[in-house]
Amino acid sequence: LRKGFPEVIFGQGKTAEQIAGIMEKMNAQDDRVLVTRLSEQKAAHIQALFPQSVYHADARVLLLEKTPPPICGRGPVLVMSAGTSDIPVAKEASLTARAMGNEVETVYDVGVAGIHRLFSHKESIERASVLVVAAGMEGALPSVVAGLVNRPVIAVPTSVGYGTSLGGMTALFAMLNACSSNVAVVNIDNGFGAGYMAAMINRP
Amino acid sequence: LRKGFPEVIFGQGKTAEQIAGIMEKMNAQDDRVLVTRLSEQKAAHIQALFPQSVYHADARVLLLEKTPPPICGRGPVLVMSAGTSDIPVAKEASLTARAMGNEVETVYDVGVAGIHRLFSHKESIERASVLVVAAGMEGALPSVVAGLVNRPVIAVPTSVGYGTSLGGMTALFAMLNACSSNVAVVNIDNGFGAGYMAAMINRP
Amino acid sequence: LRKGFPEVIFGQGKTAEQIAGIMEKMNAQDDRVLVTRLSEQKAAHIQALFPQSVYHADARVLLLEKTPPPICGRGPVLVMSAGTSDIPVAKEASLTARAMGNEVETVYDVGVAGIHRLFSHKESIERASVLVVAAGMEGALPSVVAGLVNRPVIAVPTSVGYGTSLGGMTALFAMLNACSSNVAVVNIDNGFGAGYMAAMINRP
Amino acid sequence: LRKGFPEVIFGQGKTAEQIAGIMEKMNAQDDRVLVTRLSEQKAAHIQALFPQSVYHADARVLLLEKTPPPICGRGPVLVMSAGTSDIPVAKEASLTARAMGNEVETVYDVGVAGIHRLFSHKESIERASVLVVAAGMEGALPSVVAGLVNRPVIAVPTSVGYGTSLGGMTALFAMLNACSSNVAVVNIDNGFGAGYMAAMINRP
Amino acid sequence: LRKGFPEVIFGQGKTAEQIAGIMEKMNAQDDRVLVTRLSEQKAAHIQALFPQSVYHADARVLLLEKTPPPICGRGPVLVMSAGTSDIPVAKEASLTARAMGNEVETVYDVGVAGIHRLFSHKESIERASVLVVAAGMEGALPSVVAGLVNRPVIAVPTSVGYGTSLGGMTALFAMLNACSSNVAVVNIDNGFGAGYMAAMINRP
Amino acid sequence: LRKGFPEVIFGQGKTAEQIAGIMEKMNAQDDRVLVTRLSEQKAAHIQALFPQSVYHADARVLLLEKTPPPICGRGPVLVMSAGTSDIPVAKEASLTARAMGNEVETVYDVGVAGIHRLFSHKESIERASVLVVAAGMEGALPSVVAGLVNRPVIAVPTSVGYGTSLGGMTALFAMLNACSSNVAVVNIDNGFGAGYMAAMINRP
Amino acid sequence: LRKGFPEVIFGQGKTAEQIAGIMEKMNAQDDRVLVTRLSEQKAAHIQALFPQSVYHADARVLLLEKTPPPICGRGPVLVMSAGTSDIPVAKEASLTARAMGNEVETVYDVGVAGIHRLFSHKESIERASVLVVAAGMEGALPSVVAGLVNRPVIAVPTSVGYGTSLGGMTALFAMLNACSSNVAVVNIDNGFGAGYMAAMINRP
Amino acid sequence: LRKGFPEVIFGQGKTAEQIAGIMEKMNAQDDRVLVTRLSEQKAAHIQALFPQSVYHADARVLLLEKTPPPICGRGPVLVMSAGTSDIPVAKEASLTARAMGNEVETVYDVGVAGIHRLFSHKESIERASVLVVAAGMEGALPSVVAGLVNRPVIAVPTSVGYGTSLGGMTALFAMLNACSSNVAVVNIDNGFGAGYMAAMINRP
Ligand SMILES: Nc1ncnc2c1ncn2[C@@H]1O[C@H](COP(=O)(O)O)[C@@H](O)[C@H]1O
Ligand SMILES: Nc1ncnc2c1ncn2[C@@H]1O[C@H](COP(=O)(O)O)[C@@H](O)[C@H]1O
Ligand SMILES: Nc1ncnc2c1ncn2[C@@H]1O[C@H](COP(=O)(O)O)[C@@H](O)[C@H]1O
Ligand SMILES: Nc1ncnc2c1ncn2[C@@H]1O[C@H](COP(=O)(O)O)[C@@H](O)[C@H]1O
Ligand SMILES: [Mg+2]
Ligand SMILES: [Mg+2]
Ligand SMILES: [Mg+2]
Ligand SMILES: [Mg+2]
Ligand SMILES: [Mg+2]
Ligand SMILES: [Mg+2]
Ligand SMILES: [Mg+2]
Ligand SMILES: [Mg+2]
Repeated sequence: LRKGFPEVIFGQGKTAEQIAGIMEKMNAQDDRVLVTRLSEQKAAHIQALFPQSVYHADARVLLLEKTPPPICGRGPVLVMSAGTSDIPVAKEASLTARAMGNEVETVYDVGVAGIHRLFSHKESIERASVLVVAAGMEGALPSVVAGLVNRPVIAVPTSVGYGTSLGGMTALFAMLNACSSNVAVVNIDNGFGAGYMAAMINRP
Repeated sequence: LRKGFPEVIFGQGKTAEQIAGIMEKMNAQDDRVLVTRLSEQKAAHIQALFPQSVYHADARVLLLEKTPPPICGRGPVLVMSAGTSDIPVAKEASLTARAMGNEVETVYDVGVAGIHRLFSHKESIERASVLVVAAGMEGALPSVVAGLVNRPVIAVPTSVGYGTSLGGMTALFAMLNACSSNVAVVNIDNGFGAGYMAAMINRP
Repeated sequence: LRKGFPEVIFGQGKTAEQIAGIMEKMNAQDDRVLVTRLSEQKAAHIQALFPQSVYHADARVLLLEKTPPPICGRGPVLVMSAGTSDIPVAKEASLTARAMGNEVETVYDVGVAGIHRLFSHKESIERASVLVVAAGMEGALPSVVAGLVNRPVIAVPTSVGYGTSLGGMTALFAMLNACSSNVAVVNIDNGFGAGYMAAMINRP
Repeated sequence: LRKGFPEVIFGQGKTAEQIAGIMEKMNAQDDRVLVTRLSEQKAAHIQALFPQSVYHADARVLLLEKTPPPICGRGPVLVMSAGTSDIPVAKEASLTARAMGNEVETVYDVGVAGIHRLFSHKESIERASVLVVAAGMEGALPSVVAGLVNRPVIAVPTSVGYGTSLGGMTALFAMLNACSSNVAVVNIDNGFGAGYMAAMINRP
Repeated sequence: LRKGFPEVIFGQGKTAEQIAGIMEKMNAQDDRVLVTRLSEQKAAHIQALFPQSVYHADARVLLLEKTPPPICGRGPVLVMSAGTSDIPVAKEASLTARAMGNEVETVYDVGVAGIHRLFSHKESIERASVLVVAAGMEGALPSVVAGLVNRPVIAVPTSVGYGTSLGGMTALFAMLNACSSNVAVVNIDNGFGAGYMAAMINRP
Repeated sequence: LRKGFPEVIFGQGKTAEQIAGIMEKMNAQDDRVLVTRLSEQKAAHIQALFPQSVYHADARVLLLEKTPPPICGRGPVLVMSAGTSDIPVAKEASLTARAMGNEVETVYDVGVAGIHRLFSHKESIERASVLVVAAGMEGALPSVVAGLVNRPVIAVPTSVGYGTSLGGMTALFAMLNACSSNVAVVNIDNGFGAGYMAAMINRP
Repeated sequence: LRKGFPEVIFGQGKTAEQIAGIMEKMNAQDDRVLVTRLSEQKAAHIQALFPQSVYHADARVLLLEKTPPPICGRGPVLVMSAGTSDIPVAKEASLTARAMGNEVETVYDVGVAGIHRLFSHKESIERASVLVVAAGMEGALPSVVAGLVNRPVIAVPTSVGYGTSLGGMTALFAMLNACSSNVAVVNIDNGFGAGYMAAMINRP
Repeated sequence: LRKGFPEVIFGQGKTAEQIAGIMEKMNAQDDRVLVTRLSEQKAAHIQALFPQSVYHADARVLLLEKTPPPICGRGPVLVMSAGTSDIPVAKEASLTARAMGNEVETVYDVGVAGIHRLFSHKESIERASVLVVAAGMEGALPSVVAGLVNRPVIAVPTSVGYGTSLGGMTALFAMLNACSSNVAVVNIDNGFGAGYMAAMINRP
């Protein structure tokens, strides 16, 4: 049905054996398989069975493909993160968007407390066709970025923070209240969903 | 900056006088002005001053324009609602998307409790370039619809319901947990934001 | 009092010794004993003492009986799950309903994102006398299923998901807001309670 | 489809005109129409158009039927309330169950603070085929009642109370934690849903 | 100041060394020292230094005294628990009340789902001068017990349960909404506070 | 049963007619009747029927008695309030305690921001047999007061405040966390319950 | 005690008569009296009695003074607001700071969605000795502003917004998570507290 | 930019290697580096590389400096804690303020349940230029302390407590509702932020 897109397995809550079993079947018929939320331990087990697979430890993503897909999106997808601790979620988004045939650019660690750092990436921001912005704590970055462009911004709240960050709920609610209107939001820590949505929007 | 888009005024918490004042200034330089969350009472006051403006009472939207903008989006935007009570939010979305130059189709009252009603609109669903889906209570419709298409779905939770609908929070959280990945979400009752985001995505 | 029904022990928060002690007493006078929420470790200890007992690891249920009870319900109980991760809760329900004298049919992994998978089980759904539907994340399945039948549906929210799934609260609230009226709900992850309630309803 | 059951209109959030319109259509083809959550004001408007309709002000229910349906349930449905203030919700349940062809018995004001009052209704409790129990505040009554019978109990939390009653959430959560297992729960103040579910269970 | 009462140390969040240090000082001048929320591991360390001290593992309480205090309360304190899992909290209450010079009686496992078990303790209930009632899950027991007596009831919610028991919040809120008026409440799992308050009330 | 105590009617959610009806019956057999949470409007209606009744508008309490009951408590009950806005709740407590045969002393407006004001009432505080302390906002007063006495303190959170006072939840939780152990808590704004509990404790 | 500071009356929940009574006493001995959270209606009543008093309707503040106090702060206090709807809270802050002897500058409507508007006020921002920043919805402004200065920022969340703005809770939590460290926060809509704290910090 | 202030690294969520890398770069150009929220294990690793660094285990703070900075604040900063368990947070505050050039005084374990202990520190309290007050559980101390001085108080809620302390939320909300107006609040357990803000306020 969803031709050209990779098959995706949600790794959390499945055993390595279960995942490998599903991969076996998919591999026969699909060009690429993406496994998300995969722990290092399970990844080791799976890589023993699929030596050609690549595991991205920080993003907890495993990718099984012969060659990367050709670029077919309408323009570059820009993936940004507010802090260093938000990078794993941002990487999950960028790996997903790339596996779905998009050129992906990344800009990390440009939180709103040092707004000048953000402005030094003005060109990348303006060039982007779709933007994914990951932020934890107060989750303010998507609103500021969206104010700079006329393109859709997918905001991903992360669970980074402590106390009143409420495991990402504060960032989530802040993003849903973004004063810029070109922002839509996905679940907390859902880098995959953000990358997927960006790819969907970027389809020609 | 945002050329071609209408100017938008958030009507809630502003007096009719304040709104009219802003409209006066905008009207001189813009092709169209959109006022959202405008009560019937304030609208009457404003229409006395701007007789050519049109007020959509159910959507609480006022539109001031000489002619509707030419259609320039990549394809039709489909706006759906789960229940009858969700229609005002859906209308706010469709008026916004139309004012931003999109062909808009609407399908109302196709909640998941009678799933066959949904399927009778299969063609509209498959034709759409972007979809906006408004639902209150359990907020299940976006997930089901998104499972039927390879296009981006903007989900709008509404505050329709009582008790554990929690003023729209239940629908919001359900939508953020949609098992379909091509879904992103806006604030509760934010039909304007959903229509705006759809238009942004649909820009050629 | 509750003649014909198994004795039930809530295993969580009791030591293996305590559970074995209670089983000893019950075993003398009852035909079958059911232990729920029993960890693998405690089960091993108990099976050493009651070698004829059977432990269902995924459902965390232990069953001690000489023979299964005769079928006495009014019709088949259908137990469904939305995702693979909801299966343990669904199994707890089906083991409970079976131990209480019901014919049980199971249909797993029919979430609303691929609604066609659900429809391929139309016959089982229409044959059922009572339905138990387990779902996590957005918890939409019970509403859709209930719309297809004129029979009571017991919905079980599961704690499957992350972020805004809120440990099952989102699924719970969604189910309490189901637009279908033939739905009632039990506690999060309470497969036992759902199976018990279904059996109670199915009594001739 | 649902032959023999009344058509039901959710009155809240619809104008009297809209409701009358729907009734007009239904009346042509159905034996009875039930309107719930109908304010006194709207009811007056509707009764002017449908003089044969009966409005139950405390339950906010309007019923349009030529004759009451014949009794066809498996046994009596018992509807109970913990306090006087819970009676409107209980009445909504009993009117619904009656309109769906059930013999209904009611026992009101038997809260757990005076447990002897409850026991004086032992016979009604034991005779019932299905029980509906409405309670606000601490919501303890369903658990106590369910402990006395081997029949399904549908618990309805009500929004009665103040402060930590949290608009019915406390009663809801208490009921979901009932130590008796033959309890399932519907939304806060959802007397209609409870009556409907009871009727569904009581179908022969 | 508080003559005759034991010195009390809140063990949680202090190292065994810190606790032993405080005990050393207190022991010189006080008749008895009570340590609450003390883990088994820390207790072992402390008992090596104070061999005459007694550790109650289930209540996580350590008591250092030469002889128990003489009984000086106005009448017996009755400590009750709804389930087996609530016993540790109940024991913390009864050890505290005893250490403060009260005769303590205990009645465990008399939850509201089997109300007859409760009534078999009618005499103890009527004899009591003050009652402490611990319950988790739906927290209904204090309300029922308070309805049977003309004496003050201190309700202790426990964190026993899962899902919507919300770590004791549901029991807490239910108790604050008790329809009996002779109930006041302490913090979740605060058996110590309940015993202390009972002793305070029972002072002649 | 509860001989010597007044009959109490919870006025909220009952019509003036209903209340008058209950009073009629009670008046025949009881020495005094107390109606709580009674609006000014309903009180006017009732006083027309029971001219000897006294209505306390700020406490929203109506009292019907021939003579006040004789003092029979063990000592004075001291009722305190932190702010001026907490006085209605404090008065509901003091009227209740007085109607149940207690000598009542009151000390108002002694919040913790001006701690010296509190200390000027040292004598009243030390003389009291039981204390009731009402406070909104941060709810700190009960903890400070309880630290000054060896007597039971009943804390009543009030809904006074705005924003993060959360309608009294903040005061409630603060009181449940009081660092003094001789504190137990009743529902938000439940002055009646606090006075009742104090009277119960003060019974000889 | 707090010499030189105005006396302050919290107007909410007090009658006009009560407020006037307190003002009478204060006026005899104080140079200025500030009344906050005062409705237009009560203000009219009070101005009839104190004709020299000035009422600021948008800030709901009434000020009674012969002459404004001399400026004595260490430097200018800058009060900013993110949106137009946040201005009333900002004004309450600036009136308070001015009444406490501070030079106050104000910059309104500089939300983060149009970050350039903020930068056009760079000079005012850098000149300020203390900053007060009011924002609703996502509450992002304080974090961005604080990143531009080496001075203390007092953040005031406002209840402006709808849906997930949660009556100001989202802005509050966002501010407590500000990635800039020179930020401290006051209660929702507490403009008075922010102005008071700024004045306290600015004391020489 | 922020000349004279130490560079600060948020240690949580970074590996020891990452932290050491950042320190390497900073050390070349800065006089002092502060690492917060650093576990003992990571600290050991870092101290092996920077032997001159000092690790404060209870505050989880590591400080790398040749000599402490000269005192340049306007007066002493007083850091207080309500309980012993709040000391780590208080220490994080005092180390931060000291590293930013302030004279710091500390007063620990002066909770409101024994208010006389607080008053024995009257002189320190009155001498302070800025105060930081850490408290968990009911969080009442800042309000009482702020009532005694005419200086700004920075309140830090701590996560100390259990049950309704809600991981520090109760203390946070109580502090935001402090009846004293010279209080502003930082995030739960954010001793660093409190010390930083105090230093910012104390700049001459
Ligand atoms: N209904 C709405 N919900 C959310 N944001 C809105 C809405 N209507 C307008 N807006 C946004 O508010 C801005 C105008 O705000 P204002 O300057 O206060 O009128 C517009 O540019 C939109 O981005
Ligand atoms: N998994 C479960 N969830 C909820 N209730 C249960 C569960 N398992 C058993 N129960 C109930 O707990 C009772 C036994 O509790 P206990 O006496 O603590 O073993 C049974 O009679 C059931 O009603
Ligand atoms: N203000 C109040 N708050 C809580 N409970 C109350 C209050 N007033 C009366 N009650 C309780 O409600 C009972 C009467 O309830 P009702 O039969 O509904 O009038 C009394 O016996 C009291 O226990
Ligand atoms: N314990 C802490 N809590 C909150 N913010 C902190 C803490 N420690 C450091 N920070 C802030 O985090 C910034 C450094 O973050 P990073 O670049 O991730 O190391 C510092 O400039 C501080 O503003
Ligand atoms: Mg961030
Ligand atoms: Mg819906
Ligand atoms: Mg699901
Ligand atoms: Mg009740
Ligand atoms: Mg219980
Ligand atoms: Mg207070
Ligand atoms: Mg804002
Ligand atoms: Mg404290």
